[in-house]
Amino acid sequence: MKIGKYSYKFNNVYLDQSSTVCGLIEKEGPLSNLFDYKLDDNYFGEKSWEKAEMKILKKSIDLTLSKTKITNFDLAISGDLINQNIISNYVYRNYDLPFIGIFGACSNITLGLFIGSNLLETKNMNNILISTSSHNSTSERQFRYPVEYGGARPESATFTVTGAGSCIITNQKRDIKITQATLGKIIDVGTKDPYNMGAAMAPAAVETYINHLSDNKIDPNYYDLVLTGDLSNEGSKVFKESIETYYNTKINNYNDCGLIIYDINNQNVFSGGSGCACSALVLFTYVRDLLLNNKIKNCLLIATGALMNPLILNQKETIPSTATAILFERGDLDDIS
Amino acid sequence: MKIGKYSYKFNNVYLDQSSTVCGLIEKEGPLSNLFDYKLDDNYFGEKSWEKAEMKILKKSIDLTLSKTKITNFDLAISGDLINQNIISNYVYRNYDLPFIGIFGACSNITLGLFIGSNLLETKNMNNILISTSSHNSTSERQFRYPVEYGGARPESATFTVTGAGSCIITNQKRDIKITQATLGKIIDVGTKDPYNMGAAMAPAAVETYINHLSDNKIDPNYYDLVLTGDLSNEGSKVFKESIETYYNTKINNYNDCGLIIYDINNQNVFSGGSGCACSALVLFTYVRDLLLNNKIKNCLLIATGALMNPLILNQKETIPSTATAILFERGDLDDIS
Repeated sequence: MKIGKYSYKFNNVYLDQSSTVCGLIEKEGPLSNLFDYKLDDNYFGEKSWEKAEMKILKKSIDLTLSKTKITNFDLAISGDLINQNIISNYVYRNYDLPFIGIFGACSNITLGLFIGSNLLETKNMNNILISTSSHNSTSERQFRYPVEYGGARPESATFTVTGAGSCIITNQKRDIKITQATLGKIIDVGTKDPYNMGAAMAPAAVETYINHLSDNKIDPNYYDLVLTGDLSNEGSKVFKESIETYYNTKINNYNDCGLIIYDINNQNVFSGGSGCACSALVLFTYVRDLLLNNKIKNCLLIATGALMNPLILNQKETIPSTATAILFERGDLDDIS
Repeated sequence: MKIGKYSYKFNNVYLDQSSTVCGLIEKEGPLSNLFDYKLDDNYFGEKSWEKAEMKILKKSIDLTLSKTKITNFDLAISGDLINQNIISNYVYRNYDLPFIGIFGACSNITLGLFIGSNLLETKNMNNILISTSSHNSTSERQFRYPVEYGGARPESATFTVTGAGSCIITNQKRDIKITQATLGKIIDVGTKDPYNMGAAMAPAAVETYINHLSDNKIDPNYYDLVLTGDLSNEGSKVFKESIETYYNTKINNYNDCGLIIYDINNQNVFSGGSGCACSALVLFTYVRDLLLNNKIKNCLLIATGALMNPLILNQKETIPSTATAILFERGDLDDIS
């Protein structure tokens, strides 16, 4: 059911199994015990960073498929950060599945869940596989400099998470329900600094969150937990201040995936985590556990994406961003399988 | 309604207005009279090819919006070939519309129509704007060499179409119905030659077409017109021969958009047209006219996309491809508004 201009309510969309694979820095972070598979080598035995990222994504998909009882999938949805979505495209040639490639940059996991949840609502589809990945070294060399170059980075820079997350959504009852989605617009407030993506993306997250709250006629403290995707230290401050100012109230239910996945005071990750895997890894570990253990009843995840490339920034352009929100809720007792 | 493993039937999806913008070479081609807007300068008054392509896409969207009576859109879907979908992303920051970015390479128009048509079937959405673009000079410099470099090209190379197409799909009755969609898998038969994309993509088109015919239990001469997206001279021969061999029958209803948009015998376009705009421009001019003038009752468009980038080909990888099919039909008399 559509509510308001941007939001959709779902009655029969559930999160089935999910899996996460993480890299070396993530393994040393606070969520270490929750990841399904942890790399000992960020090359993962491959000869290039790109092939390593492909293997990471494939590992996460295969782990998810090994956990689930579902065997029939209507389609797969996946996206990544690398030019022409090659990570997803090359991995999914290994699976006999109709495929939708998406590009929402670091918002891919919630963009995929938006599309997938709506497609389940057609009742023509029953089970959809959704995944995303990022790798610090593939992103750094594509968007900034090769890591080996050793370029200095300002403290406002975020640190791209190495990892992949995948999940299955289904119309069969499961413990965690996906009850709403709010699709983002493309927002450009004129920032130009690729070393401060958090600040570039915060306005898109603010826009989507305000639209979500407005569509639902609720206040910003309504949910148990509200997470932005990867605004990290700089961007999450902008987000929090903007929401508190707009609603003239303190918010106490907010955090950012980029600040959860790393210990930013003790790990050398600058402003915190970013990349498609950032929100996916936090969702499928930290958020999933909080919901399953009844620590929270609901969580709104607003994953954010910066939609530029280096070429267009060299042409003096600004950085547009987007954010898509998905609401996860603990199922009622009678929903639990 | 889902039919078979890959195909979906729609009861209430219609093609509202559409528009096309084309470049200099396309203007000299056989469809010249059918384009809504023709460039006199492939820079379109901009300082870079990328900004020119953005302006072309925006022009096509604005033309479509100026033609339609629809004013409320649930969302927009768009994708292009340029890294991180920047053409679509930068253009859509100008519109107050929830946005889905897709990447199906040159199959973007049918991939967008697949997603959009299924979303209309939820009955939660009423009107969706879908668009795509390509530009010969942005593609050449990203995927091969800058045009100014003057690198020699083999005859098997395709020529990226400069242009943009956009359309609105709606659940309100219109002359042209979208009655089916068949989503593609990712197919990789091991070709490595970026100068013969047609041959790389043909197997994906064959796979999707066979799946479509099998899901519908019909033979390859069932439709009035079957078009592949941009296989051009090399790939369309592979496609035709493969289908004729598989079904042990001659097919006489087949053509390729890359051979329709140019006069390949008299224009210097090598093997024929390619790029996201290739199938979009042919669909919104040639196919639309044939349907509206009752020359044909139906057309299955199988747009194809090659899903690689230069970096991964330099790592000795092969070229995976995909193809998504959309069935357009002339509405019954009582459907016509």
